[in-house]
Amino acid sequence: MTLMDKYIEKLNDLDLKDMYNNDFFLTWEKSDDEIEGVFTIAEALRELRKNNISPKIFDSGLGISLFRDNSTRTRFSFASACNLLGLEVQDLDEGKSQIAHGETVRETANMISFMADVIGIRDDMYIGKGNTYMREVSKAVQEGHNEGVLEQRPTLVNLQCDIDHPTQAMADALHLINEFGGIENLKGKKIAMTWAYSPSYGKPLSVPQGIIGLLTRFGMDVVLAHPEGYEVMSDVEEVAKKNAQKSGGSFTKTNSMEEAFKDADVVYPKSWAPYIAMEKRTDLYGNGDFEGIDKLEKDLLAQNANHKDWECTEEMMKLTKNGSALYLHCLPADITGVSCEAGEVAASVFDRYRDPLYKEASFKPYIIAAMIFLSKVKNPQEILAKLENDNKARKLK
Amino acid sequence: MTLMDKYIEKLNDLDLKDMYNNDFFLTWEKSDDEIEGVFTIAEALRELRKNNISPKIFDSGLGISLFRDNSTRTRFSFASACNLLGLEVQDLDEGKSQIAHGETVRETANMISFMADVIGIRDDMYIGKGNTYMREVSKAVQEGHNEGVLEQRPTLVNLQCDIDHPTQAMADALHLINEFGGIENLKGKKIAMTWAYSPSYGKPLSVPQGIIGLLTRFGMDVVLAHPEGYEVMSDVEEVAKKNAQKSGGSFTKTNSMEEAFKDADVVYPKSWAPYIAMEKRTDLYGNGDFEGIDKLEKDLLAQNANHKDWECTEEMMKLTKNGSALYLHCLPADITGVSCEAGEVAASVFDRYRDPLYKEASFKPYIIAAMIFLSKVKNPQEILAKLENDNKARKLK
Amino acid sequence: MTLMDKYIEKLNDLDLKDMYNNDFFLTWEKSDDEIEGVFTIAEALRELRKNNISPKIFDSGLGISLFRDNSTRTRFSFASACNLLGLEVQDLDEGKSQIAHGETVRETANMISFMADVIGIRDDMYIGKGNTYMREVSKAVQEGHNEGVLEQRPTLVNLQCDIDHPTQAMADALHLINEFGGIENLKGKKIAMTWAYSPSYGKPLSVPQGIIGLLTRFGMDVVLAHPEGYEVMSDVEEVAKKNAQKSGGSFTKTNSMEEAFKDADVVYPKSWAPYIAMEKRTDLYGNGDFEGIDKLEKDLLAQNANHKDWECTEEMMKLTKNGSALYLHCLPADITGVSCEAGEVAASVFDRYRDPLYKEASFKPYIIAAMIFLSKVKNPQEILAKLENDNKARKLK
Repeated sequence: MTLMDKYIEKLNDLDLKDMYNNDFFLTWEKSDDEIEGVFTIAEALRELRKNNISPKIFDSGLGISLFRDNSTRTRFSFASACNLLGLEVQDLDEGKSQIAHGETVRETANMISFMADVIGIRDDMYIGKGNTYMREVSKAVQEGHNEGVLEQRPTLVNLQCDIDHPTQAMADALHLINEFGGIENLKGKKIAMTWAYSPSYGKPLSVPQGIIGLLTRFGMDVVLAHPEGYEVMSDVEEVAKKNAQKSGGSFTKTNSMEEAFKDADVVYPKSWAPYIAMEKRTDLYGNGDFEGIDKLEKDLLAQNANHKDWECTEEMMKLTKNGSALYLHCLPADITGVSCEAGEVAASVFDRYRDPLYKEASFKPYIIAAMIFLSKVKNPQEILAKLENDNKARKLK
Repeated sequence: MTLMDKYIEKLNDLDLKDMYNNDFFLTWEKSDDEIEGVFTIAEALRELRKNNISPKIFDSGLGISLFRDNSTRTRFSFASACNLLGLEVQDLDEGKSQIAHGETVRETANMISFMADVIGIRDDMYIGKGNTYMREVSKAVQEGHNEGVLEQRPTLVNLQCDIDHPTQAMADALHLINEFGGIENLKGKKIAMTWAYSPSYGKPLSVPQGIIGLLTRFGMDVVLAHPEGYEVMSDVEEVAKKNAQKSGGSFTKTNSMEEAFKDADVVYPKSWAPYIAMEKRTDLYGNGDFEGIDKLEKDLLAQNANHKDWECTEEMMKLTKNGSALYLHCLPADITGVSCEAGEVAASVFDRYRDPLYKEASFKPYIIAAMIFLSKVKNPQEILAKLENDNKARKLK
Repeated sequence: MTLMDKYIEKLNDLDLKDMYNNDFFLTWEKSDDEIEGVFTIAEALRELRKNNISPKIFDSGLGISLFRDNSTRTRFSFASACNLLGLEVQDLDEGKSQIAHGETVRETANMISFMADVIGIRDDMYIGKGNTYMREVSKAVQEGHNEGVLEQRPTLVNLQCDIDHPTQAMADALHLINEFGGIENLKGKKIAMTWAYSPSYGKPLSVPQGIIGLLTRFGMDVVLAHPEGYEVMSDVEEVAKKNAQKSGGSFTKTNSMEEAFKDADVVYPKSWAPYIAMEKRTDLYGNGDFEGIDKLEKDLLAQNANHKDWECTEEMMKLTKNGSALYLHCLPADITGVSCEAGEVAASVFDRYRDPLYKEASFKPYIIAAMIFLSKVKNPQEILAKLENDNKARKLK
């Protein structure tokens, strides 16, 4: 029995052929097999590395990171994933401005891709823009490949857009799978994805949307809770509903944090901006109405301040299943009395969950690596077996 | 018959020994054999990569990029070339200012080169400075190597200077060789290297100079066209004349874009700044006369505006051989109605040539890699054979 | 007899087991065996590379560089060392501000370290902060590793802090060992670590402190010279005294540059800021008293200007042993008439020692690589033998 056997066996049951040479934009565009394929490969790569076996599949090649805003965590996760597989990261920084579309995208996408195997994009700042931009880039490099400009077609990984945050949601899910001892054990578990107060404004919606769009697939009872006015994208709520129906779970909404926390197995309290406000902001930005943006910002902060009671306190935690629900967060959290006066979570709660939170984050590089792996490797089982068999040390010791 | 046979055979006929441990500054400092050597290695490396054979010749080592201005394309081309051969890129950003000369150059050049195999420099902003600076760096690292400071001598690649843009011109030439089916087929072909209107000012002269300095070597009829007052460096015109004489081609000048386009097989309409204006700008900069620079900028933009008719329109294209000359550009182009109100080229012309333009650009990483390869490898034939024979996969799949 | 034999033999006599999985913060926390182990590995790695044998011990992994201020030299040294061993460098730039402490450090340290093998930190700007910060990071990743968050524990290399500059001091020492033909030949040699005038202010104390804290271990006669008021950290002077007693050398102080230079075998004239002023500056910064900082700066520059005669002139050099002491500097130096009107050293002196100075600097990447090597490899002798035996070419040629 070799290390890779159990992963290979699981993969044998999955249909993953459409992932080859394909992008990863939204989890709900992927089949259940494909989602499980990513989890399986992520675990397999972690197992190889843990056993000091190099999972490198590239001898050369670039992984291009294209970030619209500063990001330490995601940047390092993407860099780690690329490096693990043998790609060198090159950053393309286009500033924080709303990026040019159309011809410029087409040209730039090709110009940076002559030796690129992967492009990771984070563009979550403008509603209706980020995901659209990623698809434009994907189309451009596909055309470039068709026309013989690009010898290989770089595949795209969505590192966070205005709609979904698939690498975060899947890392969170893999953390749950590990904590509960298997994907099958998620069935019937209640998770509260709830809004929480933060003194900052404009936090992206991609995390709550990603979570309700993904976790409803595993038969979980997913509750989305937020004050009135903090609605997320309705399209994603529709996705969640359909997922729940299919998986035998449920998707419900409430304006009470208490109700969401009641008997929850997992809680995910996190601030976000109202979808309609973010839409408005994008329009204001498009019109160059910076005065309007300033006013919107003030209004949103004032609106937030009405809901300071949406905090994950010890009292709130007592409402959860046995008072000991698993606490999730994508980090960094706004911790009351630590990073701000009043925030998303009480310091004592956060502190108690520090190690699990860091473990949650530790899955992200492997999730990204798995997405890259499945988009680049035609026969994942064969390659996993080969990697174990080659047994190249990641580090001499 | 192996993949590399035809390249090795061609290389057997060429004398390339002076390229070993040497820099690449100006194409006209290189022999015909050496120019053909670079094309041949570029094609061979592309062939290896296309066949998923890694052309890596370094197990470690740094490729240092030193750019005086922002550059996405050239930066990614250099990074791609280094990565393909096994070097890790480290950027040395010294800002856009005119770099310090003398002692500082000598010291910095050595301090960054302890493990550097290649240094790629782009410094095209000041007449009389860029190329001079590169040679200073080269001299400094040669001395460092002689004195035992540097275990290896990093070789330099000119990624664009005030005189030549060898990696661009050679990528353009390799594109022509591919389009016309062989270097021998360039003989007798007419190319129009012409000025074109742009609403921006101060575009470097290195592209037109690089083109007339290189393409005159292949027996082509090279026509340089520009409005009066947009003369390029006279030294390079002399180079072009001598090249043409030797190669059996021709080098002519005209102030008529129409004349240049007439029956041309290839057109290269592109804006540039007058050489004398750029010289003046360098002096003003040297004297810290920023008011003078502002005035010069205004004057140049006004001068440009007198020549808005220098545009590569559909009508102009009709003048070319069968109305279907190959259109070249180093990108990004100023496209009328797309990137500016009035520019170098009509949108419909540009659009028709998009794929060939991207292909043209795709040769640059391979040209750079070939320059590095020939400066680092003593027996290129032997190493190509070894790479094919080792047959290390660039990517498992 | 193989290349590595003499290094392996020397290593056989040394107890290096505590270096495994450990950080390198201060030279005086390391045993004599450990100091000599670093020198030995540095020489061995240089020998391997010189013989075109790759000393790569990592197939993948990140080396994270965390710099508080701009640094070309140290940045390239760290990047070179990482690259030589197979790690890819990722920069974490947190700006020049005094970094956040406590919870944020703990979190960030873990978030960047999922696949990090090494973290190199340069934080020399605030007294009492830099070294403390490094230890916080170390503690955080150790906890992360203990809790199963990090599969491996990244080890830290101090690339300069407020107390010591171990990679510089050890590179300087290895230079001396090479110049004098062996570590045993340092015994009885006199080195003058002296202050010198510079028109800039606030230069770190870590170089003089690092030098007196290290060179006193080799039986040298170490003289620390500076004008009154330019005292260094008293704790480090205590270290120097104890070292000297143990090694049979001496540690003396003087306020006369002439006395220090008299019959010196080695001179190291270099500007630094008074310790008490730097302490005051840290407090002012902590209180956000920028007016106070401005005033302090003016006072310090005025204080410096009283000591323009502290310059390493030809006359001063004549006082040294046979008028030909070895001149050291960590670079860049303030050279009179070259980089400033009046500075640390006369141009003719500096120029005469240029090659040795560059050689001095060339040891730093190898010292860093050796520190990494010993923190990552359990059996250094075995691995050196394996690397030579595997005989993988660093570069095909």
